Amino acid sequence: MANVDVIVVGAGVAGLVTADRVRAAGRSVVVLEARDRVGGRTLTEVVPGVKDLSVDAGATWVAPDQQHVRTELARFGLETTPQAGPGDALASLRGKARRYTGAARALDPVTTADVGQAMMRFAAAAEHVDVVAPWRGDHATKYDAQTFESWIRRTCVTSKGRDYFRLLCEAVLATEPQNVSLLHMLFVARSGGGLSHLVTTGGGAQDARVVGGMQQLAQFLAAGLGRWVRLQEPVTTIMHDADGVSVHSESGATTAHRVVVTVPPALATSIEYLPGLPHDRTQLVQRMPHGSVVKCHAVYSRPFWHDFALSGEMTTDEGPGKVVFDTSPPGSGYGVLTVLVEGDDALRLGARGEARARTAVLRGLAEHLGPRAMDPLAFVSRDWTAEEWTRGCFGAQLPPGAWTQVGSALRVPVGRIHWAGAETAERWCGYVDGAVSSGERAAAEVLAALP
Amino acid sequence: MANVDVIVVGAGVAGLVTADRVRAAGRSVVVLEARDRVGGRTLTEVVPGVKDLSVDAGATWVAPDQQHVRTELARFGLETTPQAGPGDALASLRGKARRYTGAARALDPVTTADVGQAMMRFAAAAEHVDVVAPWRGDHATKYDAQTFESWIRRTCVTSKGRDYFRLLCEAVLATEPQNVSLLHMLFVARSGGGLSHLVTTGGGAQDARVVGGMQQLAQFLAAGLGRWVRLQEPVTTIMHDADGVSVHSESGATTAHRVVVTVPPALATSIEYLPGLPHDRTQLVQRMPHGSVVKCHAVYSRPFWHDFALSGEMTTDEGPGKVVFDTSPPGSGYGVLTVLVEGDDALRLGARGEARARTAVLRGLAEHLGPRAMDPLAFVSRDWTAEEWTRGCFGAQLPPGAWTQVGSALRVPVGRIHWAGAETAERWCGYVDGAVSSGERAAAEVLAALP
Repeated sequence: MANVDVIVVGAGVAGLVTADRVRAAGRSVVVLEARDRVGGRTLTEVVPGVKDLSVDAGATWVAPDQQHVRTELARFGLETTPQAGPGDALASLRGKARRYTGAARALDPVTTADVGQAMMRFAAAAEHVDVVAPWRGDHATKYDAQTFESWIRRTCVTSKGRDYFRLLCEAVLATEPQNVSLLHMLFVARSGGGLSHLVTTGGGAQDARVVGGMQQLAQFLAAGLGRWVRLQEPVTTIMHDADGVSVHSESGATTAHRVVVTVPPALATSIEYLPGLPHDRTQLVQRMPHGSVVKCHAVYSRPFWHDFALSGEMTTDEGPGKVVFDTSPPGSGYGVLTVLVEGDDALRLGARGEARARTAVLRGLAEHLGPRAMDPLAFVSRDWTAEEWTRGCFGAQLPPGAWTQVGSALRVPVGRIHWAGAETAERWCGYVDGAVSSGERAAAEVLAALP
Repeated sequence: MANVDVIVVGAGVAGLVTADRVRAAGRSVVVLEARDRVGGRTLTEVVPGVKDLSVDAGATWVAPDQQHVRTELARFGLETTPQAGPGDALASLRGKARRYTGAARALDPVTTADVGQAMMRFAAAAEHVDVVAPWRGDHATKYDAQTFESWIRRTCVTSKGRDYFRLLCEAVLATEPQNVSLLHMLFVARSGGGLSHLVTTGGGAQDARVVGGMQQLAQFLAAGLGRWVRLQEPVTTIMHDADGVSVHSESGATTAHRVVVTVPPALATSIEYLPGLPHDRTQLVQRMPHGSVVKCHAVYSRPFWHDFALSGEMTTDEGPGKVVFDTSPPGSGYGVLTVLVEGDDALRLGARGEARARTAVLRGLAEHLGPRAMDPLAFVSRDWTAEEWTRGCFGAQLPPGAWTQVGSALRVPVGRIHWAGAETAERWCGYVDGAVSSGERAAAEVLAALP
């Protein structure tokens, strides 16, 4: 006999949305979460020593065309504030910094032409990719047989053009272009409305932030579920057969008709499944490594970069912090810079310890904003690779061969086991919006299957 | 206080050699094994219904230049029998089968020329690879940024030449060339004495088999360790600090000065480490997926292929069983064909169930050996992807980017945690010989560090 109708593994956004929808349909649900908090890769942290200030240490931005997450935010009265602010952005490639405004990048004419022709080729290739089933189609095998780096080398004719695409890959995936297949990059771009859309503030993927922080979404969802969200219960084993599922954690077993596993595939492999999972699934979870991110926040008494008519948005090919945004809370007076340290930079920075990481990141800011950048009121950083229950951000990035060989196993339920999470989304794969839609899909699956 | 000096996780060949050497040095050791048997990826199975016949369902062959495993076999009086037998081998590419003898492959002159020039280029590139540290060197980054498939497409000028290298990749790694970096393939080849050496019987990697089966090595090693090998104890958690380690399984905790983890990296990630592991290690274990193998044995009353002057060794580009060897035990009278189903073929065959797999494999044999092949005395198969405690064979194959970004973490101890296993070997990486040498290395590491 089942304790509940549905068990959800993981109290990130995908898991909480799943549970919320199951409850809304009048069925019973329990969410088992390994951590002592909800939110998964969304995490809003209070900045120590700075009154009333919190920062998003995890997922931050929403796009105008992310209807799933926008609807969910609106439901709880959560408002957004535009990312784009006054002043110029900065782009620094090979030691040369240029200002720019709007969506245009400050590249010299030759590089602009090179990036432009490559972008057109990329967009044309992306047209061949099926977002619902990227493993399908005439071109899929060819695109999946090569790295994105191979494509960059073949397609760009200038070294700065190649650098630009490498930087773009790190900014979008938090991993280097040799680590993913061309197909994966094409899929992610198409899944999120195009490569340029993914790196754009006004109107793009970084269009707006959630006032008060993104984690509130998870907190409101969890509050609605009350005691049915059980923290600090890492799931060790899932037993499943024709009669039901039995999900084991240290505190014992919970039984249900269905289970929805919402943790990233690389973590889902730590759960023991009895009986074991199908072959393609067993392979797939071995081939979805995470990118690496250390997300840093430097807090200043005011956004002093406005003195130079700079917006605080910066992109540089010199690490460790290659992507910077001004995330000052509107009306707070404080100046906050979010520095994204990604890929190899993140792996190396994380290994160096917090104090040295702070110095390295602040020096990078000072390079463009002057010595005032070296002396923030506060500095906080979150190293997602060090998180036992995440092991890298933003999410899973597929190496060559994985999508076409075993990608079709990503969302297919295994008997009574269903899968959700940002990685399983067709649209906005890897984003909070994808997490929300994946939870809705998984909830619909289990509700249709419940007796 | 430590219960024992050293804990070894995993009773495969690497783990048992580690424990054997630690005991030989007069120190105490316990081996914790998840399965109800020793041997890991070595497994000698009795064939049901056929008197006195057993087959190697796992690792099988030894090469003349594999001194580590040869010494170990000799120690227990285990003998080998040559793989190469009388008769011609068969190679079938694109529907055309040709006989050949010795090391020469039966390719048409144009394909031979193409494969020849590509082999020379491959060998020249392999010269640049450092087997001790493949992540080092001027060429490493370039080789690691592309798939082996990209290299094949660029280097071979004929479609049959490309097919040949793809087949060779599957035979050596049990995965397709788009799934690994060029650097990985170069490293594996160099680690085992060259690409041709890896696919050669007489004098090469398939030079000889162990009479009575390869698993005996593990069984003899385990017998010497007696009750210090504890079966059915999957390790869940390893706690480690400056004072020692505490290794947890269902039956409780065992403490020691040092622990040697010998399970493949993709499985080592299922163990919880407290505190967590360094970043490069956390990344690396997410990027060492296993190949896929279903190893089949068809047993006949006699080796009837000798009637056609065929040796039973066959290579074909038509699946599911692309690589076939005669492994008839000398003097037994039986004719035994070992059919290796690898990579994508293995994933698909394994999903089809045993009965249909049998038919598909036997049909492949009958294609070249006639209808007698369809009616064996017995047919056994072992699907390594379905094994909870292996999850794919022969072993880990690294996708692009992994070696150069995080490969240096492969063997580096983390405090009191040491690493062994075939994947950690410099010479004969992924082979039983590499498992033996890795155990010797790990034992030397912990012995030098013990108080």
